Amino acid sequence: MNIAIIGVGLIGGSAALDLKKSPLFDKIYGVDENPKHQEKAKELGLVDDIIPLDEALEKAKIILLSIPVDAILKLAPYILDRIEDHVVIEMGSTKTKILESIADHPKRGRYLAAHPMAGTEYSGPKAAVTDLFKDKVMVYVEAFKTDEDAFEIGEKIINTLGMHSIFMNAKEHDMHTAYVSHISHLTSFALALTVLEKEMSQGRIFELAGSGFESTVRLAKSSPDMWTPIFEQNRENVLEVLKEHIQQLQNMHDNIENKDFNRLHKMIKKSNRIKRIIK
Amino acid sequence: MNIAIIGVGLIGGSAALDLKKSPLFDKIYGVDENPKHQEKAKELGLVDDIIPLDEALEKAKIILLSIPVDAILKLAPYILDRIEDHVVIEMGSTKTKILESIADHPKRGRYLAAHPMAGTEYSGPKAAVTDLFKDKVMVYVEAFKTDEDAFEIGEKIINTLGMHSIFMNAKEHDMHTAYVSHISHLTSFALALTVLEKEMSQGRIFELAGSGFESTVRLAKSSPDMWTPIFEQNRENVLEVLKEHIQQLQNMHDNIENKDFNRLHKMIKKSNRIKRIIK
Repeated sequence: MNIAIIGVGLIGGSAALDLKKSPLFDKIYGVDENPKHQEKAKELGLVDDIIPLDEALEKAKIILLSIPVDAILKLAPYILDRIEDHVVIEMGSTKTKILESIADHPKRGRYLAAHPMAGTEYSGPKAAVTDLFKDKVMVYVEAFKTDEDAFEIGEKIINTLGMHSIFMNAKEHDMHTAYVSHISHLTSFALALTVLEKEMSQGRIFELAGSGFESTVRLAKSSPDMWTPIFEQNRENVLEVLKEHIQQLQNMHDNIENKDFNRLHKMIKKSNRIKRIIK
Repeated sequence: MNIAIIGVGLIGGSAALDLKKSPLFDKIYGVDENPKHQEKAKELGLVDDIIPLDEALEKAKIILLSIPVDAILKLAPYILDRIEDHVVIEMGSTKTKILESIADHPKRGRYLAAHPMAGTEYSGPKAAVTDLFKDKVMVYVEAFKTDEDAFEIGEKIINTLGMHSIFMNAKEHDMHTAYVSHISHLTSFALALTVLEKEMSQGRIFELAGSGFESTVRLAKSSPDMWTPIFEQNRENVLEVLKEHIQQLQNMHDNIENKDFNRLHKMIKKSNRIKRIIK
């Protein structure tokens, strides 16, 4: 059995590295429209060969879709139109719009929507690392719409990556990820912009940047090509959480402005409850 | 020569651990008003003995002041009133108000204001770790006001901790730290509150919390007793940077609301310039 990985970047490339070490597949093909990524993926030995998409659909029965969500929206129906008993495992970060777009497709049963809660702030083939997925959570979305045999093959691959699995519907998934992933990125982007603006006039700021700063801005290195379409497709949820986050910051601002440090202390103490969740 | 560490928490306790391994001091005394911290510091062997402050000023010539900045504001003049040729090394996170309060003190020359750009989100004696300061930056603030012999002793200790040193005036220091440290904490506190509020109604959110989320909220575990006085003492700078940060988030919100994803893409791309600074 062969697998074709569409998009040999952080997610696809890392999956390739892990799958190469397993006996699951005879050949691992890569598909990537970016010539630089094609070259890099070959140079790094992530895949056995880089081939065009249509050839990949002929040579491989398992298709891993690991490209930005706007590209998934375009490519998912195109791929479903061209397959027989293939299994398409799609790893995008949003689900509602993507799954709506293929809801009535006759090949819907061959499609497994999954979102690995794993990643780094880097992108492209050179960002690929082994064990990226190990012990992380894979969210299966609307898995009940996937044919049983297709799901089983998907699970075998996801188990090979070392992941735990949970199940959600698309709306639940998109709301939850807005809170625990998308907002973190928006905050980091905004924080980086805030500090970069100041740095232009005050060059010494970064002499002081310690690990706390690094921790809160590291996500601001993330790719705009990957993230803009996520915010576009998850617009309503992202707006809701962004509004709440701005309100919390505004409350902190107002307490500091009004010198109500008792109330500020209470807010900080309340936020400490995050210890329950983040060890 | 003996040293007394006032406040045997994350900073004081970690310094104690490193200094114990050096031949600089005969005895390391700890002073802490919290009985639980006294016990824990002894149990962990951070210091040779826990003694009252006045006794410490008699037994030790070197005083390390590593307590919350509101406590420094109260204790710094008290200590300067009671010393002769001691050296007081103060490690608070704000400087303007503290240094103003002792500006005209006859013993000002014995006081070295220093801010280690090192820390974790944990506090108290159990948060103490070796090598916390290694290869980190120590900011000396208004060091020109410190007597030469006192500064030299301070530098010897800071070198023993493995730190690089830079020099700033108090206003510069407080503005810079607002940008690279204080705002990161406010953002984390606000983000934790945003997500915790939602979690109360949607318990499954945290099944999805990945490393990106953890990275941006980990600072929300930080102590309110330490941080509230920092925001109080650095109020003007913190308000300025908080206003800018809220504005950046509002711009992102507006671009998403208005579906201006080109502009959002540009903002994210611009924020990527943080790569220049954070490796």
